[in-house]
Amino acid sequence: MNPSISVITLGVDDLKRALAFYQDGLGWETKGIVGEDFENGAVAFFKLPSGLRLALWPRKSIAAEMGVDVAKNANEVLLSHNVSSHSEVDAVMNEAKLAGATILREAKDLFWGGYGGFFKDPDGHTWEVTWNPAWSS
Amino acid sequence: MNPSISVITLGVDDLKRALAFYQDGLGWETKGIVGEDFENGAVAFFKLPSGLRLALWPRKSIAAEMGVDVAKNANEVLLSHNVSSHSEVDAVMNEAKLAGATILREAKDLFWGGYGGFFKDPDGHTWEVTWNPAWSS
Repeated sequence: MNPSISVITLGVDDLKRALAFYQDGLGWETKGIVGEDFENGAVAFFKLPSGLRLALWPRKSIAAEMGVDVAKNANEVLLSHNVSSHSEVDAVMNEAKLAGATILREAKDLFWGGYGGFFKDPDGHTWEVTWNPAWSS
Repeated sequence: MNPSISVITLGVDDLKRALAFYQDGLGWETKGIVGEDFENGAVAFFKLPSGLRLALWPRKSIAAEMGVDVAKNANEVLLSHNVSSHSEVDAVMNEAKLAGATILREAKDLFWGGYGGFFKDPDGHTWEVTWNPAWSS
């Protein structure tokens, strides 16, 4: 697994309020809320000059996608590791499993066209391993 | 406030176990545990090719530095925004406050030689604003 983090997703209770804080309050640039046509799809991205993306995504959407309860706090912060193919997603998920990670959701095709799964590290921090056809790795 | 995240810190229960997972299990390079000479200082850093750093820091150390209970979950994940001077730390903390952030700990001189404070965004995600004399911003 290459050492990389592509997206940091913050679980939020109120997407518009969170967007206002980062966009208007801190002055970070974003295209605003996208993905509203999809169930659990509404999200706001900030592409940082470093290439890293910060995402704001409602906690209930994250929980629904992970198949966990909102109350379980598994949806606080999500670190995404993007790779360049379906098979690389499977390889990284397997590597994480062998390393002792708990598989939260096996990789599958996702509503937005990508493919990915979730695992937790030994302290419960959640990682998404994902292939996004719209992004280069 | 420039849109940047310098360090993602994961709160861990057992630093050696967490280090083994990322270093041995996932194969990420690190100098291992550093800072053990300081109270609450033991930490492991992974400098990623993108320039972003991933840090593993015991939850109890984070909580002690923040002045919060471990149980409050304020120490799960910490996003650090590094700037290049004392005065810039103060300016960013003030900007965050004006934007509606909750100041968790006002900026102060830190045991490792830096200067920084903590704030929480409207959803409770914790940011550290810090000046590190050993790093460029």
